[in-house]
Amino acid sequence: MKKIVTIAREFGSGGRYIGKLAAEKLGYKFYDKELIMLMSKESGLSDEFIEEAGEKITNSMLFNVAMGGVYLNPGYNNTLMPLSDKLFVVQSNIIKRIAEEGPCVIVGRCADYSLKERGDCLNVFIHCPDEQKAERATKIYNMPEKNIEKEIKRRNKARSSHYYYYTGLDWGSPSNYDIVLNSGSLGADMCADIIADIAKNC
Amino acid sequence: MKKIVTIAREFGSGGRYIGKLAAEKLGYKFYDKELIMLMSKESGLSDEFIEEAGEKITNSMLFNVAMGGVYLNPGYNNTLMPLSDKLFVVQSNIIKRIAEEGPCVIVGRCADYSLKERGDCLNVFIHCPDEQKAERATKIYNMPEKNIEKEIKRRNKARSSHYYYYTGLDWGSPSNYDIVLNSGSLGADMCADIIADIAKNC
Repeated sequence: MKKIVTIAREFGSGGRYIGKLAAEKLGYKFYDKELIMLMSKESGLSDEFIEEAGEKITNSMLFNVAMGGVYLNPGYNNTLMPLSDKLFVVQSNIIKRIAEEGPCVIVGRCADYSLKERGDCLNVFIHCPDEQKAERATKIYNMPEKNIEKEIKRRNKARSSHYYYYTGLDWGSPSNYDIVLNSGSLGADMCADIIADIAKNC
Repeated sequence: MKKIVTIAREFGSGGRYIGKLAAEKLGYKFYDKELIMLMSKESGLSDEFIEEAGEKITNSMLFNVAMGGVYLNPGYNNTLMPLSDKLFVVQSNIIKRIAEEGPCVIVGRCADYSLKERGDCLNVFIHCPDEQKAERATKIYNMPEKNIEKEIKRRNKARSSHYYYYTGLDWGSPSNYDIVLNSGSLGADMCADIIADIAKNC
């Protein structure tokens, strides 16, 4: 049995929704926006900043300066620590703590990497074909149709860069996950069923 | 329901064994060595040549010359056709025919690509960590331990090149498959269960 399910997902693949469905089927807690709110309280950073920075930024000096510079890091020889790194450390600690608290599904936030020392995680990656990502983005997220494929690519590239910056690993590579699912061909319900079955029986 | 299951797999991942288990669970026919024998009879090429060439070669002129040159291709303006391409066309036609004949699991041979026009295929890729590939190769396939990791890498690179040559696609990329399974973390039985469950219920 896997007590923790982590879900990395392409933007537009419906991975968050699948994670929520899987959590319901398993009776596990579900963390996504909830996690952001926890992070916000702990770090003293604003909800808006965290929402913006959560999965997009890397250690861009320009970004960090624009968002208010760098933090002094008292735990690490008082070295200067970019704001984005500070946020990553905060969210990583929260992820470790909520995993300790009980069974849960965690979407995004490099949770697979933060929990890699545990033996009870099922690490999942969800993707789907580009045209289905575009359909989901316009019909479900109500994004404008103009340049939608370019915008989706931009967001996924940002997720990939963020993951690589903090883990040194290739975000979309199967080797980081136990199972990789194509939500376009399998459908969201089937993906959630597969995840719940494996988490129960593995 | 998916009547056809195709399995692409890293050498050493146990993908062939998983395919056989899944076929048993589903009551589907299983094609691997059996397929090679069918191919052999149809093409007039020797069993040994086909075993050697089946998933390793690309359109290397040196290879084709060494193996007996090129074939005249009567169906294509009598152009010269490399032996490796001739073999690919033969195996692709056989794969299409056996898929027409009834439910089956087909391991390797770019079967996912040959059957891409069908809507009833479940396309699976199986991989596992390097150390487990090495363990399987030495303990189950009885390969010598010396340079085993290098030899496994060589074989997988050859599979990848072969797949790219004939399909233009990246062999290990999740986008080519419905599901990608890590046999190292999930185990062979669980992988076969997942495949059988999806084939039955999707």
